[in-house]
Amino acid sequence: MKCRVCRGPAVIDIRRHNAAFCGDHFVTHCREQVKRAVHEHKMMDPAERVLVAVSGGKDSLALWDLLTDLEYAAEGLYLGLGIDGYSDESLQHTRAYASSRGLKLHEVDLGQDDGFTIPVAASVTHRAPCGACGLSKRHLFNSFARDHGYDVVATGHNLDDEAAVLLGNVLRWETGYLGRQHPVLPTALGFVRKVKPLIRLGEREMAAYCVIRGIDYQVEECPMAEGNRHLGYKEVLNALEDRSPGAKAAFVFGFIDRAHPLFSTSADEERAALGACESCGSPTTTGSLCAFCRLQERAASAPEAAE
Amino acid sequence: MKCRVCRGPAVIDIRRHNAAFCGDHFVTHCREQVKRAVHEHKMMDPAERVLVAVSGGKDSLALWDLLTDLEYAAEGLYLGLGIDGYSDESLQHTRAYASSRGLKLHEVDLGQDDGFTIPVAASVTHRAPCGACGLSKRHLFNSFARDHGYDVVATGHNLDDEAAVLLGNVLRWETGYLGRQHPVLPTALGFVRKVKPLIRLGEREMAAYCVIRGIDYQVEECPMAEGNRHLGYKEVLNALEDRSPGAKAAFVFGFIDRAHPLFSTSADEERAALGACESCGSPTTTGSLCAFCRLQERAASAPEAAE
Repeated sequence: MKCRVCRGPAVIDIRRHNAAFCGDHFVTHCREQVKRAVHEHKMMDPAERVLVAVSGGKDSLALWDLLTDLEYAAEGLYLGLGIDGYSDESLQHTRAYASSRGLKLHEVDLGQDDGFTIPVAASVTHRAPCGACGLSKRHLFNSFARDHGYDVVATGHNLDDEAAVLLGNVLRWETGYLGRQHPVLPTALGFVRKVKPLIRLGEREMAAYCVIRGIDYQVEECPMAEGNRHLGYKEVLNALEDRSPGAKAAFVFGFIDRAHPLFSTSADEERAALGACESCGSPTTTGSLCAFCRLQERAASAPEAAE
Repeated sequence: MKCRVCRGPAVIDIRRHNAAFCGDHFVTHCREQVKRAVHEHKMMDPAERVLVAVSGGKDSLALWDLLTDLEYAAEGLYLGLGIDGYSDESLQHTRAYASSRGLKLHEVDLGQDDGFTIPVAASVTHRAPCGACGLSKRHLFNSFARDHGYDVVATGHNLDDEAAVLLGNVLRWETGYLGRQHPVLPTALGFVRKVKPLIRLGEREMAAYCVIRGIDYQVEECPMAEGNRHLGYKEVLNALEDRSPGAKAAFVFGFIDRAHPLFSTSADEERAALGACESCGSPTTTGSLCAFCRLQERAASAPEAAE
């Protein structure tokens, strides 16, 4: 297996590109894919202030690394979710990476700053924790970026993540979610633009990127995500990709090009009808309090919160 | 396991309905599901002349049986595809069923009547046989129904078939095919209405129906369909259904209700732009000859056809 560029020994092959790369040229390949995604979807300009949502996992650290090398002014925000053992370790990985590259890292702790943790939220809502977690992340990354004058929030969603979410949305034909599933969600009243620069890169590639670049990341899956539907969708998509390399990319990019425009009207209408949360000012569809503030209120009044 | 209706011993359970049935009540259940599908999608009226596309497999024989019991004037058309061993055996099952119930069966033989068989078509096109086979079936069922004054062609596509085709279309975002994927394709210039009354019933249920009703069907999969992508999609969907009963039904019916309308405009436009085939008069998008007549021409001029 030889590098497509220099014909030296390759360290990774990517079947859907029918290509293999040595370490150096693989890093170049990843940068090119990020540049192409940013350009194709008009994600951001070099002059803009970027807030990277960092979790300490491979995707978000690789994203921060790639954006920094592409000379974006990218600062990180780590959100402490209060998941025993897992959250502390993730923070250590994030801090170590930031300090090794001299990058600016911000930290918000859900428990200290907002009065509840994800395990408490899961227990008071009697639902799978991933819902409360996603909701909290979207809310807090957006409000931090808005309050501190960032132009754009970049998240580490990769091709596998997007394909799995898309499959879930398609299997249930969640037309509202389909209208909002796009590599760029533009700036709107109360919303900072959100972009996914890793959309052209797969999970396995992001792990390889971190290894090659010597980035030490949180390898464990979140212990609360066990049995999460998306992990099942990833398995299914891996089986399809195995049989037909490029299947995931065709699924995600075909959606963006040909189907998303059909679903986006309803999402646009929904956005236009948003009000402002009475407590925090964030956009909300759900009445006087936004979903995050309602979750916070519920967690505060529940006996579990005090335990 | 007890029958939901009579509490007698059940012979089949259907997880997505959270129900089990004895033989008699399962047959009633199947009839109810067909009645509901026909009614919900306005498939046909009792006074209309129905042509059932029969292959000798479980789905098409069960369909014919169900429509007859629901008092539709349903005649069958068997298409001889010229697949060694398989086609002859399928015809025997079809004839045996028709004569046992005293039903009118028509027969068209692709080799004798149109000058080529599916194996020849596959060999001259150098493609998977399923493409030429589907094309030939659509063409010949439609033209037979049109030439003999039937109001509607009914096919035995079940819920699993529809889910697998839908998954394939969605994975590649085939927007044209998505616009045409519906349990009813209405009558249009040159097209007889096409309906799928088994859309609410799964593959396993159709096999059980035939066993319970004593219908002897062709059990073998078509030998030319091996490695067919749809079989892979069925596996994937079975895994999803196993984890979450009702997943297939939610996928197919969610599509019909909420997504198909978004895709159907382009299909309508396409239909409006159809011309008539110079050779057979059938509707065509592809120039002066329709795809079937071109296939026939190609097969006739190929040396393989004579072998």
